[in-house]
Amino acid sequence: MRASRFFISTLKEAPSDAEIVSHQLMMRAGMIKRLGSGIYTYMPMGLKIIRKVEAIVREEMNQSGAVELLMPLIQPAELWQETGRWDKMGAELLRIKDRHGREFAFQPTAEEVITDVVRSEIKSYRQLPLNFYHIQTKFRDERRPRFGLMRGREFTMKDAYSFDRDLAGMQASYKVMYDAYVRIFNRFGLKFRAVAADNGAIGGTGSHEFHVIASTGEDALVYCPTSDYAANMEAAEALPVNATRPAAAQALTKVATPNATKCELVAEQLKLPLAQTVKTLALTVEHERDGKLTKQYFMLLLRGDHELNEVKLGKVPGLAAHRFSTEEEILEVYGTVPGYLGPIGTKAPVTVVADRSVANMADFICGANDAGYHYTGANWGRDTAEPSLVADLRNVVEGDASPDGKGVLAIERGIEVGHVFQLGTAYSEAMKATFLDENGKPAPLQMGCYGIGVTRILGAAIEQNFDDKGIIWPAALAPFALVLCPMGMDRSEAVKAATEQLYAEALAAGIDVILDDRGHRPGQMFADWELIGVPHRVVIGDRGLKEGNLEYQGRRDSEATAVPVAEALAFIKGKLAQ
Amino acid sequence: MRASRFFISTLKEAPSDAEIVSHQLMMRAGMIKRLGSGIYTYMPMGLKIIRKVEAIVREEMNQSGAVELLMPLIQPAELWQETGRWDKMGAELLRIKDRHGREFAFQPTAEEVITDVVRSEIKSYRQLPLNFYHIQTKFRDERRPRFGLMRGREFTMKDAYSFDRDLAGMQASYKVMYDAYVRIFNRFGLKFRAVAADNGAIGGTGSHEFHVIASTGEDALVYCPTSDYAANMEAAEALPVNATRPAAAQALTKVATPNATKCELVAEQLKLPLAQTVKTLALTVEHERDGKLTKQYFMLLLRGDHELNEVKLGKVPGLAAHRFSTEEEILEVYGTVPGYLGPIGTKAPVTVVADRSVANMADFICGANDAGYHYTGANWGRDTAEPSLVADLRNVVEGDASPDGKGVLAIERGIEVGHVFQLGTAYSEAMKATFLDENGKPAPLQMGCYGIGVTRILGAAIEQNFDDKGIIWPAALAPFALVLCPMGMDRSEAVKAATEQLYAEALAAGIDVILDDRGHRPGQMFADWELIGVPHRVVIGDRGLKEGNLEYQGRRDSEATAVPVAEALAFIKGKLAQ
Repeated sequence: MRASRFFISTLKEAPSDAEIVSHQLMMRAGMIKRLGSGIYTYMPMGLKIIRKVEAIVREEMNQSGAVELLMPLIQPAELWQETGRWDKMGAELLRIKDRHGREFAFQPTAEEVITDVVRSEIKSYRQLPLNFYHIQTKFRDERRPRFGLMRGREFTMKDAYSFDRDLAGMQASYKVMYDAYVRIFNRFGLKFRAVAADNGAIGGTGSHEFHVIASTGEDALVYCPTSDYAANMEAAEALPVNATRPAAAQALTKVATPNATKCELVAEQLKLPLAQTVKTLALTVEHERDGKLTKQYFMLLLRGDHELNEVKLGKVPGLAAHRFSTEEEILEVYGTVPGYLGPIGTKAPVTVVADRSVANMADFICGANDAGYHYTGANWGRDTAEPSLVADLRNVVEGDASPDGKGVLAIERGIEVGHVFQLGTAYSEAMKATFLDENGKPAPLQMGCYGIGVTRILGAAIEQNFDDKGIIWPAALAPFALVLCPMGMDRSEAVKAATEQLYAEALAAGIDVILDDRGHRPGQMFADWELIGVPHRVVIGDRGLKEGNLEYQGRRDSEATAVPVAEALAFIKGKLAQ
Repeated sequence: MRASRFFISTLKEAPSDAEIVSHQLMMRAGMIKRLGSGIYTYMPMGLKIIRKVEAIVREEMNQSGAVELLMPLIQPAELWQETGRWDKMGAELLRIKDRHGREFAFQPTAEEVITDVVRSEIKSYRQLPLNFYHIQTKFRDERRPRFGLMRGREFTMKDAYSFDRDLAGMQASYKVMYDAYVRIFNRFGLKFRAVAADNGAIGGTGSHEFHVIASTGEDALVYCPTSDYAANMEAAEALPVNATRPAAAQALTKVATPNATKCELVAEQLKLPLAQTVKTLALTVEHERDGKLTKQYFMLLLRGDHELNEVKLGKVPGLAAHRFSTEEEILEVYGTVPGYLGPIGTKAPVTVVADRSVANMADFICGANDAGYHYTGANWGRDTAEPSLVADLRNVVEGDASPDGKGVLAIERGIEVGHVFQLGTAYSEAMKATFLDENGKPAPLQMGCYGIGVTRILGAAIEQNFDDKGIIWPAALAPFALVLCPMGMDRSEAVKAATEQLYAEALAAGIDVILDDRGHRPGQMFADWELIGVPHRVVIGDRGLKEGNLEYQGRRDSEATAVPVAEALAFIKGKLAQ
């Protein structure tokens, strides 16, 4: 490709709404162009990268036995109503009425449509297993689109959907996709981590997220460096800090803690470690029975330095639908104000739910249910009843014991770019997608679904690979593998001849090369290609040619290397093969 | 590809809503699956063909210097309002409101977006010419979607948009695209014709349509077999049947023609040729001036056996906005009832507009403006004034003189699959898309646009290439080049070995081969592949193998040919190269 026939458009400054580095660099490198909030045109330089992502994904899907099809963007509301998601999806689902007033959705995902396709095509277990995928545009009407391709509204995803006759088959299909994802992310050349994830709203029996590691990532990834344990923060199990509860050593003492309504302030006032304090959260669960509203109260206890994990909380029996108690409720139930609650002296009907670490604490500090006072030296069993319920309620922290018992946990940041789900029969049952099994009996299809955020990969790859000059693409994703930068090609016959020869040789060798024939000054030319992030650059200039040399510089190299003209192609091939 | 790992689903009968053969065959061959009215899932067998179409289009676009990008599907209403098309497009434009109530369109085409991209990127004539294209989903909310992929609502098109500094540049860009289209349709292996077209609502200075020739085509294509003249029916110029008007030979005679309100009935009653009759159409044009409505009346005259061309009519000065006159108006203006109007004795203020052929008639038959009577032997100049206006008003018919004077016209049917337009500055002026010319003065960009209906190609190719067994794909578009049909692969080791060897050899030779390992009976297997339309088939059976042979049959062959096993691959390669 000659740059003059391509389209290159770079900016010195990123627009002010570009908050994160990948958004800034993609805008500056002319890879995307904003059309509206969360809606981008993929400019030639950006689309070329997207096509490379798609090609790798497609090859590995085909290799795994998945079959490509293409489902429509505009999907009838009726299908979404069958699974109840027409109502559940809320404002993120872009709803459309056609000229006849019929309702449709712009697909945010395609479980309903693929299940509809399969239920009419599959009659017998003999037709299974099946795995269909498509690479398609999606739309999610985010309330606050931002971060460029990382949280846009219109974006491209690959989604695969597997159909099996039983759980074991589905889990085997899941494993095939998981392995394909590992190959895909390895081929991208990105540092990534697969972590166990909570299934969340989509339902089903298991799932993993694939994250690109980046210090700017939105998600915390928990892993054990000495084992293969890995989970996202929602799913990472927190063991109690003390495996067993120490014996009580202190007497229960009520101490004045004026204005200390948070554990940090209590620890500071008492000059005691924050890890010795217990924080209390008051929750209310409302029940309606025979038209009458009743309320149930829960007291959650966490160590003062630990954070509540909302997903884990939602799984505690009876707490799926909860809210924080109001000040009025707290006053009524606990006889005090927020900030001074504690388990000692709570009356029925409060259910005390202690985090595992709190349940194994001794001599702890907690609110005295008396405004301005806390207890020190509090102990379970002696000063108050054992907690009604002990549960994993907190986020893990670095240094926690790994749940597999094989080391301690570390945490790093990641960007979610892939997600594999064991869906089970959630969709097939709702949509009556059945097949006849070996005994001629109808059974619901066992499903899995597997997504990769194609356009999001670009943003994530940049967040992982950039410097102050611009993007540093891994080889597999670079828009061009090699750029040739002639110095004064229009003035020097020698430069022109050497450039054209190397360009022809590189093309003949199948190298994805771009020749910068725009005639720009060297400074601007180099700045453009460093910003765009092409991995390999060769400069052809009269000064070097006089000594028979070209200048090679890798995008991560701090200096250029002189390479004899005759050896240039072999040298470049060697670099590309690394 | 092994059929067991692909997805093949054929039907004996087409669904009742499939009215045309391409729709029926694509449904039966499992290439598309209906999701809603005019909305289809492209099943694996269909998508594979679409990808082949896209690949050819992409190669030729790149080869022509066009650069690929991808514009969003969801486009802000504001851009469409700038060109006025938000209002003009009517119900075909799918309008969408997002969660914040902002208005968007699902793209039916992308002139507005590309012009918006270019106006912010292009500053100087030095950056021109440019040609951007994208292959993208479109949506047109057809009132009555039908014919499968031929008139669907959601479909795929390639659209290219060229930007030039002046008219000559734009016309050069247009020529490059026109030539690329010729190469594309040649590579598809389809019989096609490029015809001059009317620019219609899109505006601009010139356009051509590319049609796939098919007897079932919706459009009439006019061409001259002895020259390169070709136009669609709207644009084909009709010369007068008589180059000059013959002298009057008959006396004007008023004859009774009871109940003969149409030329056919008059000719029948009078036993005179239909080509001697003149039919009259009464039109009204309304003008509003200073809040007062005035009406202008036009009498159109066509030869009795000719058809009115609405597009030509719309171009007659003063007739851009017209309607047929009401019975009341006819009675008031002409003093008679419809069916008996004629030019003789019409009073002012009627403007008589005669088709060129009518203007050169002598001794013609026309209404007498008296219910139940016609004139014979009517002559211009002698019996009535010359027509106020002579214009080309009719559709050409076979045998008409070609407008280039190089022969006579023929007509064939076609399906429009491509359209190239010289847009000029219609969009760039509306959207203020200017560049600085050599003198530093802002000038509007000269634009062209170039579309190919990617999914429509499939339907058109089938309408041109089918028989009673199914589809007959041209080699370039076939989902697979070759199918291997083993007879009893699970029973015979010899069949299995010969099949697997040929399959491996074909794959190694880069042939797009599918091995039908589904274990179906021969009859069903052959019927499936004839329906799907794979061009080349090899049957591997014990009977043939005993004599060292395989059986080859091309999709258009009436019989199979025995081919020695050892020569099979070379034989197939020879067939593929034809």
